[in-house]
Amino acid sequence: MTFNEFRAKWTPVVDDYLAAHLASEIDEVKLSKIMTYSVMAGGKRLRPLLFLATLDAINHHITAQDIQIAGGIELIHTYSLIHDDLPAMDNDDYRRGKLTSHKKWGEAEAILAGDALLPLGLQWIAEGSESADLVKIMTRAIGANGMVGGQYLDIAATNNATVATDANLINRMEWLKTGCLIVASVEMAAVAGCASAANKAKLLAFGRSFGRSYQIYDDLVDIVETSTAAGKATHKDQENGKHNTLTMLGAERSRAELRTLIKAAQTSLTGLDSGILAGFLDLYQKVL
Amino acid sequence: MTFNEFRAKWTPVVDDYLAAHLASEIDEVKLSKIMTYSVMAGGKRLRPLLFLATLDAINHHITAQDIQIAGGIELIHTYSLIHDDLPAMDNDDYRRGKLTSHKKWGEAEAILAGDALLPLGLQWIAEGSESADLVKIMTRAIGANGMVGGQYLDIAATNNATVATDANLINRMEWLKTGCLIVASVEMAAVAGCASAANKAKLLAFGRSFGRSYQIYDDLVDIVETSTAAGKATHKDQENGKHNTLTMLGAERSRAELRTLIKAAQTSLTGLDSGILAGFLDLYQKVL
Repeated sequence: MTFNEFRAKWTPVVDDYLAAHLASEIDEVKLSKIMTYSVMAGGKRLRPLLFLATLDAINHHITAQDIQIAGGIELIHTYSLIHDDLPAMDNDDYRRGKLTSHKKWGEAEAILAGDALLPLGLQWIAEGSESADLVKIMTRAIGANGMVGGQYLDIAATNNATVATDANLINRMEWLKTGCLIVASVEMAAVAGCASAANKAKLLAFGRSFGRSYQIYDDLVDIVETSTAAGKATHKDQENGKHNTLTMLGAERSRAELRTLIKAAQTSLTGLDSGILAGFLDLYQKVL
Repeated sequence: MTFNEFRAKWTPVVDDYLAAHLASEIDEVKLSKIMTYSVMAGGKRLRPLLFLATLDAINHHITAQDIQIAGGIELIHTYSLIHDDLPAMDNDDYRRGKLTSHKKWGEAEAILAGDALLPLGLQWIAEGSESADLVKIMTRAIGANGMVGGQYLDIAATNNATVATDANLINRMEWLKTGCLIVASVEMAAVAGCASAANKAKLLAFGRSFGRSYQIYDDLVDIVETSTAAGKATHKDQENGKHNTLTMLGAERSRAELRTLIKAAQTSLTGLDSGILAGFLDLYQKVL
């Protein structure tokens, strides 16, 4: 199966799970609607697909429980987007071509929708895996030493000129902000699918290269795409005093860095039956 | 051992765990400081103590792992206070006699401190218990059908006059907002300590009565105490268009309701060696 076939097969399964369970599992209808609005706003389901593709790469048959875990990963990703968009954070009005949660529903509602998606995501991971191990991987990836720590560094670095050329800080910030959740999606699959130690090491190496590269890709989208194509405001990082690999290295050196990481990710997969995982790297073609 | 002796023994153990591990486990020093500021602001550690006292009531020897779980519960409670105080929510300037997180550190910092405390609390619960079961109990208690759902109803009901006499809605809102996390603390101990089915039923009945009564008590504190004694603004619920049991029933009928719940909680404990758990109800004397 190719990456595109895999994506075409599993994206609607994940989407259907998300829509059905956000409707059936939440008592308060309006709150369910607010949460659903952001979850069903047209995300690519990159992280759930990465979890499922990693399972596939180690010949683990994908079950209903795995779909629940995949859905949990997407809820957590969505919570992070809702909070990142808040006025006190990146203050974004549009996301995926639609009004952001706080613009659509109000600020308290957006904070609470995020605060409800996060534990529901972890609940689905605990229920789907029946394992404390997956919960530990995810909670470590999204907390102060992971995703939230990266967002904190981003906020602290904004409009701070001394950060502009601090490669260590920028690498660390982008790794935490974006890489940690991506590599956790791979690691959870390696653990859930009982990968051998050798395969797990390869998968984690792939996850780290892909996780690091994804933020560089996302930054490049900011300058390559029009805001219509991206579904959100573009060309705004530099204007807003944001620091990232792109503002530090410029477009050409960022592309070179991205190519290096793609090569490393491909090399990591040597010996694994992983054409589908390698296919995730094709997403980057549009910015190269 | 009396309730006061139990509290005097275990409160410093929980406090020391929290202070030591928030300092050692978080890489980013400033973010650790922001999280620690709210966690170590002088809370009573009611929920961790309730978890530990429930273990004690079923003759479970309290271990280092149980302290980690207890600490995790307190992190989650603290996250909820930080987010409840935000300008878009209850907009409080003081909590426990100190500036609230967003007044002290900034709004983005407060949102992120909460967003970091929540997964760290669940991480500690997963690490301490090595069980998906405790994670499931906690995540269900604090999400859309629990604590966050209650806060959502509270926000939606504020300044909505039709809510003022809606006993069902007010009961449900206060139960979700405050009761769910309290009963989860009891249930997690019943599961971690392998309580018999009969004892678990008694403990949960106690937890439900105590959990429901605690918000009524907290509302009464709002009118009984001066703001200096309470460490936060008091006499503000009615002014701010808030609806709760107190604004619905008035002080005397709220006290009667509280006495009824205390009686029910005491009756639930019949047959358990639970003088310490019963002692939690003595906290209410100051508003009766």
